[in-house]
Amino acid sequence: MNAKKQLLNIAMIGHGFIARAHSNAFLQVSHFFDSPYKLVPQVICGRNRRETEAMAARWGWREVAADWRSVVDRRDIQVVDIATPNALHAPIALAAAAAGKIVWCEKPLSLTVEEAETMAGAVKNIPNLVWFNYRRVPAVALAKVMLDQGRLGQIYHYRALYLNQSGNNPAKTSGWRYQRALAGSGALGDLLSHSIDLAHYLNGPIAEFSAMAHTFAPGRDVDDAVALLARFANGSVGTFEATRYGVGCRNRNAFEVNGSGGMLAFNLERMNRLEFFDASGPAEVQAMRDIMVTGPNHPYWENFWKPGHEIGYEHTFIATLGDFLQALERGEPFHANFEDALEVQKVLEAILRSASSASWVKV
Amino acid sequence: MNAKKQLLNIAMIGHGFIARAHSNAFLQVSHFFDSPYKLVPQVICGRNRRETEAMAARWGWREVAADWRSVVDRRDIQVVDIATPNALHAPIALAAAAAGKIVWCEKPLSLTVEEAETMAGAVKNIPNLVWFNYRRVPAVALAKVMLDQGRLGQIYHYRALYLNQSGNNPAKTSGWRYQRALAGSGALGDLLSHSIDLAHYLNGPIAEFSAMAHTFAPGRDVDDAVALLARFANGSVGTFEATRYGVGCRNRNAFEVNGSGGMLAFNLERMNRLEFFDASGPAEVQAMRDIMVTGPNHPYWENFWKPGHEIGYEHTFIATLGDFLQALERGEPFHANFEDALEVQKVLEAILRSASSASWVKV
Amino acid sequence: MNAKKQLLNIAMIGHGFIARAHSNAFLQVSHFFDSPYKLVPQVICGRNRRETEAMAARWGWREVAADWRSVVDRRDIQVVDIATPNALHAPIALAAAAAGKIVWCEKPLSLTVEEAETMAGAVKNIPNLVWFNYRRVPAVALAKVMLDQGRLGQIYHYRALYLNQSGNNPAKTSGWRYQRALAGSGALGDLLSHSIDLAHYLNGPIAEFSAMAHTFAPGRDVDDAVALLARFANGSVGTFEATRYGVGCRNRNAFEVNGSGGMLAFNLERMNRLEFFDASGPAEVQAMRDIMVTGPNHPYWENFWKPGHEIGYEHTFIATLGDFLQALERGEPFHANFEDALEVQKVLEAILRSASSASWVKV
Amino acid sequence: MNAKKQLLNIAMIGHGFIARAHSNAFLQVSHFFDSPYKLVPQVICGRNRRETEAMAARWGWREVAADWRSVVDRRDIQVVDIATPNALHAPIALAAAAAGKIVWCEKPLSLTVEEAETMAGAVKNIPNLVWFNYRRVPAVALAKVMLDQGRLGQIYHYRALYLNQSGNNPAKTSGWRYQRALAGSGALGDLLSHSIDLAHYLNGPIAEFSAMAHTFAPGRDVDDAVALLARFANGSVGTFEATRYGVGCRNRNAFEVNGSGGMLAFNLERMNRLEFFDASGPAEVQAMRDIMVTGPNHPYWENFWKPGHEIGYEHTFIATLGDFLQALERGEPFHANFEDALEVQKVLEAILRSASSASWVKV
Repeated sequence: MNAKKQLLNIAMIGHGFIARAHSNAFLQVSHFFDSPYKLVPQVICGRNRRETEAMAARWGWREVAADWRSVVDRRDIQVVDIATPNALHAPIALAAAAAGKIVWCEKPLSLTVEEAETMAGAVKNIPNLVWFNYRRVPAVALAKVMLDQGRLGQIYHYRALYLNQSGNNPAKTSGWRYQRALAGSGALGDLLSHSIDLAHYLNGPIAEFSAMAHTFAPGRDVDDAVALLARFANGSVGTFEATRYGVGCRNRNAFEVNGSGGMLAFNLERMNRLEFFDASGPAEVQAMRDIMVTGPNHPYWENFWKPGHEIGYEHTFIATLGDFLQALERGEPFHANFEDALEVQKVLEAILRSASSASWVKV
Repeated sequence: MNAKKQLLNIAMIGHGFIARAHSNAFLQVSHFFDSPYKLVPQVICGRNRRETEAMAARWGWREVAADWRSVVDRRDIQVVDIATPNALHAPIALAAAAAGKIVWCEKPLSLTVEEAETMAGAVKNIPNLVWFNYRRVPAVALAKVMLDQGRLGQIYHYRALYLNQSGNNPAKTSGWRYQRALAGSGALGDLLSHSIDLAHYLNGPIAEFSAMAHTFAPGRDVDDAVALLARFANGSVGTFEATRYGVGCRNRNAFEVNGSGGMLAFNLERMNRLEFFDASGPAEVQAMRDIMVTGPNHPYWENFWKPGHEIGYEHTFIATLGDFLQALERGEPFHANFEDALEVQKVLEAILRSASSASWVKV
Repeated sequence: MNAKKQLLNIAMIGHGFIARAHSNAFLQVSHFFDSPYKLVPQVICGRNRRETEAMAARWGWREVAADWRSVVDRRDIQVVDIATPNALHAPIALAAAAAGKIVWCEKPLSLTVEEAETMAGAVKNIPNLVWFNYRRVPAVALAKVMLDQGRLGQIYHYRALYLNQSGNNPAKTSGWRYQRALAGSGALGDLLSHSIDLAHYLNGPIAEFSAMAHTFAPGRDVDDAVALLARFANGSVGTFEATRYGVGCRNRNAFEVNGSGGMLAFNLERMNRLEFFDASGPAEVQAMRDIMVTGPNHPYWENFWKPGHEIGYEHTFIATLGDFLQALERGEPFHANFEDALEVQKVLEAILRSASSASWVKV
Repeated sequence: MNAKKQLLNIAMIGHGFIARAHSNAFLQVSHFFDSPYKLVPQVICGRNRRETEAMAARWGWREVAADWRSVVDRRDIQVVDIATPNALHAPIALAAAAAGKIVWCEKPLSLTVEEAETMAGAVKNIPNLVWFNYRRVPAVALAKVMLDQGRLGQIYHYRALYLNQSGNNPAKTSGWRYQRALAGSGALGDLLSHSIDLAHYLNGPIAEFSAMAHTFAPGRDVDDAVALLARFANGSVGTFEATRYGVGCRNRNAFEVNGSGGMLAFNLERMNRLEFFDASGPAEVQAMRDIMVTGPNHPYWENFWKPGHEIGYEHTFIATLGDFLQALERGEPFHANFEDALEVQKVLEAILRSASSASWVKV
């Protein structure tokens, strides 16, 4: 009964954990979002034949391929989705853009600002998306609504953490995420990139900052931890910290905002919650509220289940895709896109510069 | 590439909220669980043509039907899934069982114990399932593992709450859930049935109890709230409360267990968490632990995402189905089944008896 | 410089833990509350000479005595404070009342309702106080203010717990609190009496209830745990539970109230907090608020430190005394007094009756 | 009965909020700590006669004085306690030291490092104390014990916040705390000094850092907020932030430590709690524990009430004094003393240098 929908045949490059989250979103988006498009998981492309075939079998990919170059300019493909190690983002995205495909790309966008600029230029007239999926956590989207409504007044402080404990596991040092040649950076690109994108989204551009990077593991050529002091263009003061040595924290992607009108606090480890302090009410009941962001009147609450029923990690990808398809239908710009990710990349690169020179830098 | 899988064509009766959760599970189970079966959403059956067609279109049901009698004995159907108001559970289940179909049924199983006994008898030799989905919340399943391991020692107390605020909404009184003829009872069957099933699962049979039921809304013929004092067969003491007037609680399906070895606490409003107090360690670090039940070494953690990444409401249905299919493959019994639901039904009916007679009853 | 204050010379009977809390309050009240009275710790009376003397030395009691009869009618004594095992409350209070002394008494007031009635009659024209100290936790007092303001609308549910783990300690069974002859009851008088008093204070009289009592420890003649289902005179439904086998709970004296206007929740283990859900605001920010009840505009906030600075257990005794002295000065009635405690005693006794007869009772 | 105790007559300079906390400690210490000394509140000295007399009357100060110089060298005085605005700390401490008095001083010790060095030199052979009271929060002391035991293994991260919202109140800008001449700095000396002292205490010396300071209020000559990136001598990485514009936070003096063996977290707004993650146990029960630090086996638990009974803000002063008197009796050094506070002062001064030069500094 979906016969009249416009098909979007997808070629996905990559077959790891994140490719699984993407596959799920491709199949699920039509169940939760209205859209004139029907997404077809056409071809999955990966170097490891056995794993790629297993992934295809499980998630309904119709074809398996080994060489990404052979699929990105196929006539029957409308979308190229990039879920590879970071070093491959640029070549694949440029090839896909040259072939006129819609391009979706994992974060961080690239290894360098130079790459990112070329990539952003290449997709200028092509619908594009970067998987900064945490913008679509309903609680984060609610924070954005409340900030846009001015409920927090003048913003004084923005505080971001992204802490996990992956680095404390000696068995886990060999993957591509721990090698500069493949990942570009460590906690910086892996974790802090999310924090920077959320900060841009919620609190606007960062004007200047001072950064510190640190590697705990001997012989590793990427950062294990990074932190910064920042000043935002809106006059607020910021602090950021990301680490793979945050033992005790599983996935603590958190932010706090203090403004003259109140406070907001979010932590991905409680992703269905947003904490809110309203400084405008009677003093005796001013307090942090622990909002269960499952409706009513919350972002995406009519898409998923019903008030009091939680959603999970994967729904952030579904919601990202749902919003993208709606923007595509309307011919409107979608965010986060390559331009947004380029802005993040500029900050990431400047952080390495600030950390190595031990000085403040302007963005 | 799933060509060799055995097809299970499903006929689902019902098209409401819960039918949506079922539809999702039918499509998703193969993505997260290994199984030799391929589930096919063949026909959805509902009285409201427009809504049923919309549901079919969105969730990939191949056919739409209006009369459940016409579909339950179709040759090409292997499974009948019952997602209707409670009053229809018995006739549909009995017809499906008579036709030799696998039967899946929403909870509570029936309006009366008599019905439930007939239903349980009818499916005696047929694979069957009752959607007591909360057994498969990973945190609940972890609690079960820990109790089975004896980590809590002798059990002293079992404490269950299921509180929501649906009754405080004057606009919401007209649905089938608020009519005895269609629902059988109010908070009792809707909410407390889950608490009773979890209590049976986690703490074993209830020996005797004293109950109270109350209706706040004038003119309503079902209970709005129900509570009981209980003694379990294992010697522990229990309290239960369920209400639709728990203003401030969205979906607080909670239990606590105190034993000589420690304490467990769960609340569905934080469904990815299990709280645990270990009374066996050094006194100075004895405290409630807030376990994020997303792995490693937790139930279902290898099925879904990875440690630190939450799952949502719908995954409880997926995991229920995943376990059912595995049991089916192995020819093993599955729980919760009609027999388990019959035991719940006996308690529900005895509660009404206890409440109206203001006396203790033995189960 | 306190020369003009009216002296109140105190004779305290008892020298245990609670007598220590009283002694502290006697010395501290003038530091935090304005009052025309100066409390003098004149004589402490205890059977164990060594311990009583140590207590006197530490807390500034001017004299030590061994026989309470010899002190209660001393001319220079204005106040008799009873901090003994429960069985001595009645004889001491009656003697003190006969001597015209102001009487302060620990809870529960007595072993029986008959005793309590006699005691209440004896102090009818004498200023008196019962140490139901938890009424003066600022968070509890704030709950009372909010309920009196009608912020919770029609009350639907009142839910009380008092859980500790003292019973799980095999070493701890020999004290007077575990013997019927000295304590009258177990968890009932020790713990539940507080919950009943708070329920009366916050939600008014209980109309009828069904109770269960249980003793886990072999050979013990008092209850280890007690629970009840209740109906309040105001039409709300209540549940209560108290136990010494609540392993994992240190001192969980908790209550929750659900009403048409919202919810309140308190737990003594977080005594500086009151949780509040306001059902009247915009749906998207309705949530539990975690109010830090340290001011501004909170009960007692100007007496103690300043907003954000917590107070502890002992301050509930100080505030009780502060309010008593103010009432004394104004000639106004003070609560909780012997009459209030008699009402609690009636419920306690009826609970034992209900539990042993397995039936509902009217209060 | 305290006749044989050695008297310590105290002269306290100051009569504000903190002087009240000191007065309380002087009266209470003997009730909770064994000591051969009896503290006598002999003379309170303040410029505002009316307020000083009121304070004396309420807290039992025997005499009132207006000029601190007239009291610090009185023969009958053994202790000078300094509870004045920061600018007076140095002159009073130097005079008291010259007179051979025991000196107790509020934090921050001084306006400059130069002053602090002179002061530390002056008390070299005199028992002295600085009121860094938060070292004696039982939860903080427990953290220290656990760190000293090596339970956290190699330390990776130390994270400190001290956030309150005092600055968001336009009515509150005129006090001495907002003037450089009297306070020396703003949030830096008022709030961050506590965080630095705790960091020194718990994690050792800071090797180098980069700081940022910010003033939100127009025309104010002290910092409203300050933040730093730091490297500790032990190889761990640190971040610090203190602000008076942390709207939503009442008194959030918080720290977190991540090490190879686990995590600790503390927040003064929940002062009776310490959170602990033990990375050494079985993975499935690894989680943050919310330890109620009221015993058994916790610092100070035998001094105050009993397990499950909270203490408040004031007890940190009592415990500080209790430990000081014990050290005095034994002739042992006490911490935090003037030397410790000098180390804090060096960091504070270097922060201003780093912030104004926008560069890293070594301590």
